[in-house]
Amino acid sequence: MPAARTAPKVAAMRILHHMPLSPFSRKVRLALKEKGLDFELSQERVWERRPEFLALNPAGQVPVLEDEGGQVVADSSAIVEYLDEVYPERPMLGRNAAERAETRRIVAWFDGKFHAEVGLNLVFEKVTKRFFGLGNPDSAALRIGKQFIGPHLDYIAELSERRRWLAGSEFGLADIAAAAHLSCIDYLGDVPWEDFPRAKDWYARVKSRPSFRPLLADSVAGMRAPPHYADLDF
Amino acid sequence: MPAARTAPKVAAMRILHHMPLSPFSRKVRLALKEKGLDFELSQERVWERRPEFLALNPAGQVPVLEDEGGQVVADSSAIVEYLDEVYPERPMLGRNAAERAETRRIVAWFDGKFHAEVGLNLVFEKVTKRFFGLGNPDSAALRIGKQFIGPHLDYIAELSERRRWLAGSEFGLADIAAAAHLSCIDYLGDVPWEDFPRAKDWYARVKSRPSFRPLLADSVAGMRAPPHYADLDF
Repeated sequence: MPAARTAPKVAAMRILHHMPLSPFSRKVRLALKEKGLDFELSQERVWERRPEFLALNPAGQVPVLEDEGGQVVADSSAIVEYLDEVYPERPMLGRNAAERAETRRIVAWFDGKFHAEVGLNLVFEKVTKRFFGLGNPDSAALRIGKQFIGPHLDYIAELSERRRWLAGSEFGLADIAAAAHLSCIDYLGDVPWEDFPRAKDWYARVKSRPSFRPLLADSVAGMRAPPHYADLDF
Repeated sequence: MPAARTAPKVAAMRILHHMPLSPFSRKVRLALKEKGLDFELSQERVWERRPEFLALNPAGQVPVLEDEGGQVVADSSAIVEYLDEVYPERPMLGRNAAERAETRRIVAWFDGKFHAEVGLNLVFEKVTKRFFGLGNPDSAALRIGKQFIGPHLDYIAELSERRRWLAGSEFGLADIAAAAHLSCIDYLGDVPWEDFPRAKDWYARVKSRPSFRPLLADSVAGMRAPPHYADLDF
């Protein structure tokens, strides 16, 4: 009898399919760490459109979570909602409907507005286009991305001073989402921290959390992060 | 003593701030109706950036819900999650974590992928640009939007035939999101229904639900919907 048929079924390791400079992947990596959940990272070259990956997520996008029990969850918002439901210790979204509504509003601000105004103009132009072979960055887009970042840093300053963390008195998914997006821009050296000291104070607090360390060790072939990127005393 | 100080506090009516051809507003309108929750619509000219509206949602976007108890919720995903938490009868997201994960994945598909590939290229170019005074539609964008709609209609066909509704055996938020986005394109006359009869079957089933009727009565100044738009037998 072949061994494979008699061996007990081993619980599969939790796997997160990701890309290093995908802010949505980073959001989930931070959330998993903050919840104390172990996982392995599997880097996905989404532009290769591997059939095995498309079977996990027909949208062909990262992040995708394969949980220990085999549950597959695609899309970063679906993943973090799933994690808060299935692993409710240390809730990331809030402790009641009003807190969760406020967290989700701010997460949507960064996943939607920040990503459209800043992320797509900088990360897409400088990083994604290269991997997809879509040519050089468009200088008008880079200019727009750099111009739009200021109001977001002001908004972070306003929220974090009024409440300590972005959605309230506790660190949570709003901070995780904002930091995930900003950290990608910071890897490119495009966050003008010196002009926004109050947002920098908040980011320094997030950056010093143990959950953040693996992100600071990320590197992308052919794109070196500026020295301050991994420096907690930047 | 002024009357205002002695009058009992009257429970405020539930209000949804919206725009008629905003797919995200339509998603919430359908969700409220499906849940049997009464509400008033307040049309917001977001391009005017009214201070009172920015106080409700600093992102300046619709939809925004003011619930009966005074709770303000901005962002369509935050609103529908809030509604399913606070009014749990007739759940729209699913009955367990796996069902909710699948619903959220499909909602993200339409809010993200469909909106980026089709919605922005057609609704933004034909409608939003006019209101914001951003000039004429870009013909390249219109071409791309029309070209990208086919694969989404195929995906709707595949899911709805395999499961009856998009996320499973019950009608829910996945159907609501997909129909909200498609209905805006349909208002513009840009859905090639005749070439996608299986997706059309699903849409006919959604369109015949009582929750859909108010959307079929919508009209936008200077933009008449094609005759089939409001026809249940299109």
